[in-house]
Amino acid sequence: MKRILIVGIGAGDPDHLTLQAVKAIAATQVFFILDKGAVKHDLTDLRQRLIEEHGRQPYRIVEAEDPERDRTTPAYAGAVEAWRNRRAAIYERMIADELADGQTGAFLVWGDPGLYDSTLAIVEEVLAAGRVDFSYEVIPGITSISALTATHRASLTRVGRPVQVTTGRRLAAEGPPADDVLVMLDAHCSFAGLGPEWRIYWGAYLGTPDEIRVEGPVPEVEDEIRRVRAEARERKGWIMDTYLLRRV
Amino acid sequence: MKRILIVGIGAGDPDHLTLQAVKAIAATQVFFILDKGAVKHDLTDLRQRLIEEHGRQPYRIVEAEDPERDRTTPAYAGAVEAWRNRRAAIYERMIADELADGQTGAFLVWGDPGLYDSTLAIVEEVLAAGRVDFSYEVIPGITSISALTATHRASLTRVGRPVQVTTGRRLAAEGPPADDVLVMLDAHCSFAGLGPEWRIYWGAYLGTPDEIRVEGPVPEVEDEIRRVRAEARERKGWIMDTYLLRRV
Ligand SMILES: C[S@@+](CC[C@H](N)C(=O)[O-])C[C@H]1O[C@@H](n2cnc3c(N)ncnc32)[C@H](O)[C@@H]1O
Ligand SMILES: C[S@@+](CC[C@H](N)C(=O)[O-])C[C@H]1O[C@@H](n2cnc3c(N)ncnc32)[C@H](O)[C@@H]1O
Repeated sequence: MKRILIVGIGAGDPDHLTLQAVKAIAATQVFFILDKGAVKHDLTDLRQRLIEEHGRQPYRIVEAEDPERDRTTPAYAGAVEAWRNRRAAIYERMIADELADGQTGAFLVWGDPGLYDSTLAIVEEVLAAGRVDFSYEVIPGITSISALTATHRASLTRVGRPVQVTTGRRLAAEGPPADDVLVMLDAHCSFAGLGPEWRIYWGAYLGTPDEIRVEGPVPEVEDEIRRVRAEARERKGWIMDTYLLRRV
Repeated sequence: MKRILIVGIGAGDPDHLTLQAVKAIAATQVFFILDKGAVKHDLTDLRQRLIEEHGRQPYRIVEAEDPERDRTTPAYAGAVEAWRNRRAAIYERMIADELADGQTGAFLVWGDPGLYDSTLAIVEEVLAAGRVDFSYEVIPGITSISALTATHRASLTRVGRPVQVTTGRRLAAEGPPADDVLVMLDAHCSFAGLGPEWRIYWGAYLGTPDEIRVEGPVPEVEDEIRRVRAEARERKGWIMDTYLLRRV
């Protein structure tokens, strides 16, 4: 039997790694890495670094080219679906050809594997196709949500109250769905225009040396966030940011 | 200056500890532990074990009696507020009397400090009172949410869709507020009665040797969850459970 580990590695800081993840990396013979091209180079670098630091020889790293997702279509879920199918074909080939029976292979997943990440669905799809057989386990990771609230020393939740986790796309389309909203995957500063009753806790490159943090009532800080976001994006070639909106 | 670390220790598995938390524990001279009486004994045990394993001598453990919260009142937020005030007085005294200038003190917090935990608010309250001065940092931890989804190998989120994190009390009062709902702090199986379109991913004592996991359409598994929950609670004297509801 082949064994696959889907390992959450945390949201940017190599020390976000849990002891469970350290042990998982040490138990792995084959690491699967999908290269996402120049803009995501830093993310691949972190993975390489964690493998070098915690991997136990002999191990191998198998790299594949990540298919591009169609970012031009408004049909977001459909585009993600098509992209998943192409990734599934690559995963299947890697698991079939590069992992021997009795060996452990690992996917190192950014943040937590259960939060807006497609690895789980892809691995399920490969299993369902039935052409390659393996067992798999998921190892939880520090989310960018926890990284955000920790650096702001803010709580995600207020006493006894709910919080909605959503995407920038949804926020732009529907406005804040609750008094406490955690927004991910926002390419367009969709918080802009909210009134002074909305406080934002914003963070980019959380857990990394480039971490940026801005906090305040939306009307007071939205220009600053736009500016530092655009500058950082220009300088680094990519950005990952997330924020908590709280109606006070 | 005194320094306080609010350290997320994960949701039950000692290996949920991050490398950052391991370093924080090693850098601490005084650990503050509030004992919650017999029912929470196991939780205090985990903290002791983490300190023994990762603490660096010389360190001290300062224990205090945790005030009881009034669980009889329907005014949940008010009761939590009053309980916080009493805790703040205890925290203030511990930080003032037991931590010397230049020393680091730590609170080891279950899961992540930003998720339904009062430590941050209490520490802010102590600072605001202005009678004792210190700096403080927050170290993120694995949440029980990530522990739940990892053991079920399920994703918290579906592609491009939101998820609401809420309490059992809210769910009981208002019903499911979204198609994907993560429920915490539920003492009463408030999912009971939902129709077959609702799938539940339920887990108790996640990350511990006592971990229990049940999954299925609510009408098919609700009796089983009630039964195993009541049995486990009886046997151990306490229970912590959480679940994801998904409309399929
Ligand atoms: C595809 S999702 C993956 C989330 C990841 N699984 C997690 O647990 O955080 C990518 C989104 O996560 C957020 N994100 C991830 N890492 C981040 C970081 N270090 N700083 C800020 N935002 C981050 C951003 O909102 C980004 O658009
Ligand atoms: C006061 S909240 C603290 C949550 C914690 N800060 C976290 O990040 O998970 C306590 C609630 O968390 C959930 N919980 C915490 N640890 C758990 C575990 N090991 N298994 C199941 N549920 C857990 C339960 O819903 C419980 O009622």
